[in-house]
Amino acid sequence: MRGLDEHRAAALALAAPLPPVLVPLLEAVGQVLAQDVTTDGPLPRWDNSAMDGYAVRAADVAAATPDGPVVLRVVGDVAAGSDDAPVVAPGTAVRIMTGAPVPPGADAVVPVELTSPRTGGQDAGDHAWATSGADVEVRAAVTAGQHVRGTGEDAAAGEVVLRAGDLVGPAHVAAAASVGRATLVVHRRPRIAVVSTGDELVAPGTALRRGQIPDSNSWLLAAAVQAAGADALRLGPVGDDPAALRRLLHELDGGDHGTVDGIVTSGGVSAGAFDVVKAALADEPGVELVPVAVQPGKPQGLGRLPSGTPVWTLPGNPVSAFASFEMFVRPAVRRMLGADPERPRVAAVADEGWRTPPGRAQLMPVRRVPAAGSGSGSEPGPAVRVRRATARGSGSHLVARLAVAEGLAVIPADVDEVRAGDTLEVFWT
Amino acid sequence: MRGLDEHRAAALALAAPLPPVLVPLLEAVGQVLAQDVTTDGPLPRWDNSAMDGYAVRAADVAAATPDGPVVLRVVGDVAAGSDDAPVVAPGTAVRIMTGAPVPPGADAVVPVELTSPRTGGQDAGDHAWATSGADVEVRAAVTAGQHVRGTGEDAAAGEVVLRAGDLVGPAHVAAAASVGRATLVVHRRPRIAVVSTGDELVAPGTALRRGQIPDSNSWLLAAAVQAAGADALRLGPVGDDPAALRRLLHELDGGDHGTVDGIVTSGGVSAGAFDVVKAALADEPGVELVPVAVQPGKPQGLGRLPSGTPVWTLPGNPVSAFASFEMFVRPAVRRMLGADPERPRVAAVADEGWRTPPGRAQLMPVRRVPAAGSGSGSEPGPAVRVRRATARGSGSHLVARLAVAEGLAVIPADVDEVRAGDTLEVFWT
Repeated sequence: MRGLDEHRAAALALAAPLPPVLVPLLEAVGQVLAQDVTTDGPLPRWDNSAMDGYAVRAADVAAATPDGPVVLRVVGDVAAGSDDAPVVAPGTAVRIMTGAPVPPGADAVVPVELTSPRTGGQDAGDHAWATSGADVEVRAAVTAGQHVRGTGEDAAAGEVVLRAGDLVGPAHVAAAASVGRATLVVHRRPRIAVVSTGDELVAPGTALRRGQIPDSNSWLLAAAVQAAGADALRLGPVGDDPAALRRLLHELDGGDHGTVDGIVTSGGVSAGAFDVVKAALADEPGVELVPVAVQPGKPQGLGRLPSGTPVWTLPGNPVSAFASFEMFVRPAVRRMLGADPERPRVAAVADEGWRTPPGRAQLMPVRRVPAAGSGSGSEPGPAVRVRRATARGSGSHLVARLAVAEGLAVIPADVDEVRAGDTLEVFWT
Repeated sequence: MRGLDEHRAAALALAAPLPPVLVPLLEAVGQVLAQDVTTDGPLPRWDNSAMDGYAVRAADVAAATPDGPVVLRVVGDVAAGSDDAPVVAPGTAVRIMTGAPVPPGADAVVPVELTSPRTGGQDAGDHAWATSGADVEVRAAVTAGQHVRGTGEDAAAGEVVLRAGDLVGPAHVAAAASVGRATLVVHRRPRIAVVSTGDELVAPGTALRRGQIPDSNSWLLAAAVQAAGADALRLGPVGDDPAALRRLLHELDGGDHGTVDGIVTSGGVSAGAFDVVKAALADEPGVELVPVAVQPGKPQGLGRLPSGTPVWTLPGNPVSAFASFEMFVRPAVRRMLGADPERPRVAAVADEGWRTPPGRAQLMPVRRVPAAGSGSGSEPGPAVRVRRATARGSGSHLVARLAVAEGLAVIPADVDEVRAGDTLEVFWT
């Protein structure tokens, strides 16, 4: 049997980051940048005011105190968004709002709270202002540069503000907009076909006759593809007819026009007499069907169809399909997106013990044990503790109980038993 | 000034879970169930085979050993999906595939690996089978119930498999499908309007004249609304014209036909002479504009427009808008979705020190310090360490640098200084 890590590596090797594509800003969220984003000029672009107040020459107000205010003539207004640039000559000031460009001649801003109108007072906002043509009393000195956001203080011209490989979130969108970008270049989102197989499967909601069950795997895997950040084409269920399945797979592998980026099948890969995926792919030279030393999920397959489309064939038991997708398909999908293929793995302490299959790695659905009375304490808490998600453990048909799982514990093949208190490697799903 | 927690409570109090709505399975992912999901019958619905093999009467093969096999006459086939139910009389067996219903009379399954065809052998899958009408040698005993998945073993009829309040993920979709549900009932996804304000704002990509900057807040907040799980209506930027803004807000508050579920504005709420949101809402009895003891983000406002639409008015500096959204709007959006309003807060250790504003809580964008050589070790690691996301700390205009932040540290108002080694409360954004 092939080892878990070896099969993971083979599954991941089928994927490469998809080509770059230009998308509007909001479409980029959750995708990965394929190009750096650089500023097209300094940020901020102009010296601008950090306060509502008056743009002044610092030298003019160097002696100002509450008891000995300096009086300046107000010669203009600069609101945010204004392109006015009234010159601040010695003895004058210009009323300025937060974010507005500092006018020529001025080198500092006095906040309105430290001023009073001497003539021409007008209430606006929360303050009394001296309007243009009137005089303002300044009651405090400012130093050159004070309350001014300098040109280029945030970023220099040509500076990289976002990097290829960054996962785009709201702050990335804002940073791109702030440097004048209306679009971003990201790796194209993969389109992954999902095909469940089995004569016993019917659409959920259909009345069941003896022997039938609702198809849940195509829904499970399509949702998992979407949750991984890709688009899912949910197809099937397909019956146990190898020729029909072969036709569908070759249609999905349709050469260089409108193909999909990958195909995930479920079911039909074990040793039974009617295993349709195994039969359909038996003569496909680019696909290997191999047992993997893992529980659940031993019967696996992967490879490329004739036109190069990657295919991963997962077992049909729902818990097996879930765990196999996490181990073998999700990393490949993430790599296609240009993202880190792996979820972070964390150390967690087993809160109970169980036996594990000798010679096979185990993928055990687990859930957190609520920490006793920790609340939102501000001290680093004790280690996370986990229990099996269901009393039946990794029993591979218990789909209705899978939803209580919060993660998978990966138990190495050389471990035969987990004991309460053992440290496990877990990733949250 | 109002305290941070008091304003958070007021902001959250504007929201309630939205009414339930029926959606197809895949649309439910990321939303919150508004109803329990119960089984419509036992799961599995029928006793079925856990293996590929032969359905037998356990008593018939009780004496079977490798040296003394028991011979049974094969009287039928049951493939998965078949509704055949050939009776297993004493001395007979039925070929059965994994998942197929155990036929009447049989009470156990012998895996094919423990059998050989005596007559009528046929290779299928990985094994040689005795086909219907032929004889099979059974080389091992099985106990009653062995390799049979019992009716109701996964879930009983009427059992709750998913609960109102569950956040729907792939496993929930699969569980719903497996109990025959093609739809789920979730809280309706909120539609949140986002309006940035300021005469200085132009669309990103537009050539800038002196005094203009690209609008980044409407993109930041729309992306944040989407990332919180809601739909964003990105509007604006709107200029510094209070009457025009008032008209837009009242249009969005359009009574009981086609209204939005909330409105977020940015900018125009401080003490300047042209603060448009403040001016537009000054006479609105349901809206209060209040300073909050937090840095960044002191000027805040919230309330309801005349028809009841919640509105949150955030300051316009991008870092303030980002932190204010996280603190005051995201919890409300999550509550509308029916989800837990709060992100989990974790304890992290400050890797450097900085001064914080006296008497005001601080929201400091932080990033993780990569752990030295921890790799994917299986021991519980040391505490997470964080540094300020930028050298300038929480400087509220540094939008281009905000993208390196991974979270916000919340420093209480009674702390004047963070020292290296202090434990901080952090949430990842």
